[in-house]
Amino acid sequence: MDLTDVAALAQPTGEKIMLLVLDGVGGLPLEPGGLTELETARTPNMDALLAGGDAGLHVPVATGVTPGSGPGHLALFGYDPLRYRVGRGALAALGVEFPLQPGDVAVRGNLCTVDGEGVVTDRRAGRIATEEAEPVLDLLDGIRVAGAQTFVRPVKEHRFLLVLRPEEATDADIEDTDPGVTGVAPLDVVAGSPSSDRAARIAREWLARVPETLSGQPRANMVLLRGFATLPDWPLFPDVFRMRSLAMAAYPMYRGVARLVGMDAVAVDDDPGALLPALEERIDDYDFFFLHVKGTDKAGEDGDFRRKVDIIERVDEVLPALRETGIGVTLITGDHSTPAKMKSHSWHPVPFLLHGGPGRGHRSEGTAGLGESECARGALGTIRGCELMPLAAARAGRLGKFGA
Amino acid sequence: MDLTDVAALAQPTGEKIMLLVLDGVGGLPLEPGGLTELETARTPNMDALLAGGDAGLHVPVATGVTPGSGPGHLALFGYDPLRYRVGRGALAALGVEFPLQPGDVAVRGNLCTVDGEGVVTDRRAGRIATEEAEPVLDLLDGIRVAGAQTFVRPVKEHRFLLVLRPEEATDADIEDTDPGVTGVAPLDVVAGSPSSDRAARIAREWLARVPETLSGQPRANMVLLRGFATLPDWPLFPDVFRMRSLAMAAYPMYRGVARLVGMDAVAVDDDPGALLPALEERIDDYDFFFLHVKGTDKAGEDGDFRRKVDIIERVDEVLPALRETGIGVTLITGDHSTPAKMKSHSWHPVPFLLHGGPGRGHRSEGTAGLGESECARGALGTIRGCELMPLAAARAGRLGKFGA
Repeated sequence: MDLTDVAALAQPTGEKIMLLVLDGVGGLPLEPGGLTELETARTPNMDALLAGGDAGLHVPVATGVTPGSGPGHLALFGYDPLRYRVGRGALAALGVEFPLQPGDVAVRGNLCTVDGEGVVTDRRAGRIATEEAEPVLDLLDGIRVAGAQTFVRPVKEHRFLLVLRPEEATDADIEDTDPGVTGVAPLDVVAGSPSSDRAARIAREWLARVPETLSGQPRANMVLLRGFATLPDWPLFPDVFRMRSLAMAAYPMYRGVARLVGMDAVAVDDDPGALLPALEERIDDYDFFFLHVKGTDKAGEDGDFRRKVDIIERVDEVLPALRETGIGVTLITGDHSTPAKMKSHSWHPVPFLLHGGPGRGHRSEGTAGLGESECARGALGTIRGCELMPLAAARAGRLGKFGA
Repeated sequence: MDLTDVAALAQPTGEKIMLLVLDGVGGLPLEPGGLTELETARTPNMDALLAGGDAGLHVPVATGVTPGSGPGHLALFGYDPLRYRVGRGALAALGVEFPLQPGDVAVRGNLCTVDGEGVVTDRRAGRIATEEAEPVLDLLDGIRVAGAQTFVRPVKEHRFLLVLRPEEATDADIEDTDPGVTGVAPLDVVAGSPSSDRAARIAREWLARVPETLSGQPRANMVLLRGFATLPDWPLFPDVFRMRSLAMAAYPMYRGVARLVGMDAVAVDDDPGALLPALEERIDDYDFFFLHVKGTDKAGEDGDFRRKVDIIERVDEVLPALRETGIGVTLITGDHSTPAKMKSHSWHPVPFLLHGGPGRGHRSEGTAGLGESECARGALGTIRGCELMPLAAARAGRLGKFGA
């Protein structure tokens, strides 16, 4: 179902929706036949919601596909990530909260090392430390070119963000300059379409200034660019679902993705408990709340099964108070799986729990507790991630009838 | 899978298919953890089919979307309702069994009340009774305009059907004249495309005659139009599936949707038992039979859990005799859910039961009886409503191999 179809059915009600994302919550047992992180966690409050709610699994992007954080969250917001694609440059801008404007061209950069002939000898400038990279990036930020403002912002280590703000409109269909290997020179800036010629010319001119600007640097004496992108022109979440919408997240990346689809966003401390006062303060001003918990993903990435379990349990403790602020419909899930066993994002379907709403349609599963196995048996089956928001909206009575 | 793909695979066999629709059969327990209407009903005959058949859930339109009766049935006939869209006007024509012809422009009308300045004061003319509306609509049926025949037919209360039959071809991309609120005049007739100009001109001329025609009426002195539509030009069910196809339904709406996709249709009494003699009489003349039972939906809309259970049980009683007329493959399901608890159509996935055919692939569910929870665990999982007919056709050996 297209977002235009959703928008045609959306109707306002007084029912508030909370999307509580435990980043990377989906997991795996350490041993075959064992319990996952979520199944191991004692979650009496989620279990109580499950008894009167619905559960299932969702596939954020497509079967077998491991989602990045951007596409994973877009799916949760109802945007099919296969259709609504964000360029790497735009994601980088979101990640550092650079206020990207319509018309801007954003691109991810790497500091790199080239030899006397301009041949790349290290694509990451020896994985230069962030503190060492920052003054180098300040130099790049000082480059001026004709026809555009330019901005350089640090991301982490060798990674940075370059934004071109051209005086006249341009597309950003431009090929990467990163050759992907060492032993060759950086690639030329090539426009993939005539409408991108202007941006390509600006990028070319900017790049031409880099060698002289970094000539005194021992390691970081050149840059590689990839993922030229503009701010996407998409239907906005608050318009599609007809809800005043707020994101609460400790990390800029998640506030950025929320802002990308038109939500307001506020920073909160990186602890599940910090979400409660933030929610209480703004409960009357919004209809939809996206709450982001990062710790589950970090623990998963660290391979720390027990810490991931602990964070899930802490979220469970704060859950009743979150709901009591005035939440009608609660959707708890992850943007992808990050099994501690794998120490990385994975393609595994993600458990979800949906509860509440005046149109509530509880189908008890007679379950022992929230977890992947129970969700796989849930009444809602395995659905696409982008189907979750329509489902939550339906629970809140916010989707009207299709056809007569 | 597109209908053209289905048509390419379809092959005739002697196997007859019965699609038995219990309108709105999907339900909810009155209390979390309880049984739904279908789970409560004693259905020994359906249970016996389940033991040797397959079960699952289907989503008629899309996850979270509450289907109207038209889209719900189109899905059951194999037509993706997101792709095959019927305008409100065409549905209204089906609902009163107006024999819509190719080229006709149908639109839903409301009798309304306007004041001396032509400002709408009541969009439904005080919800005028059907008997009171009929003579008023007879007056409107008498209006004559140049370039087209026009027809007005009562629907119910303030609602009516207007059909324009232009002498020359025209599209029907025309905006509603219903402003959606009181306190303003009806909107002008505006064509959304040049190819709809002719129909817009005819509608404008017809509307201009309404005030004088209804000038003596106390309440119903003007009309509002919405949902201009033509008869859709779709692949026809009997051609796609290569089956002589018959609908049996008490209500015009359901015969109308069946005729829309090319089925023959006969009226039967509004009692499950009435289906048996109707089926016996025509069993040799058709390959496919769509049998419609309305009572389940009406009981659900009335919030009458027990009556819905009773009607399901009456259908179960007549089921063996229906099958014994010579039915090979039986598909029992609903066009949507109408939980008595909600007193309305709902978005909940709908249980289905599929049995029979020479290519039978029974997978026993080891189930206690037909119901939503059992179907959620069924071997076929949760599928789209428009996937059911290909499945039934496959069971009947009526779909050939795809590729060599």
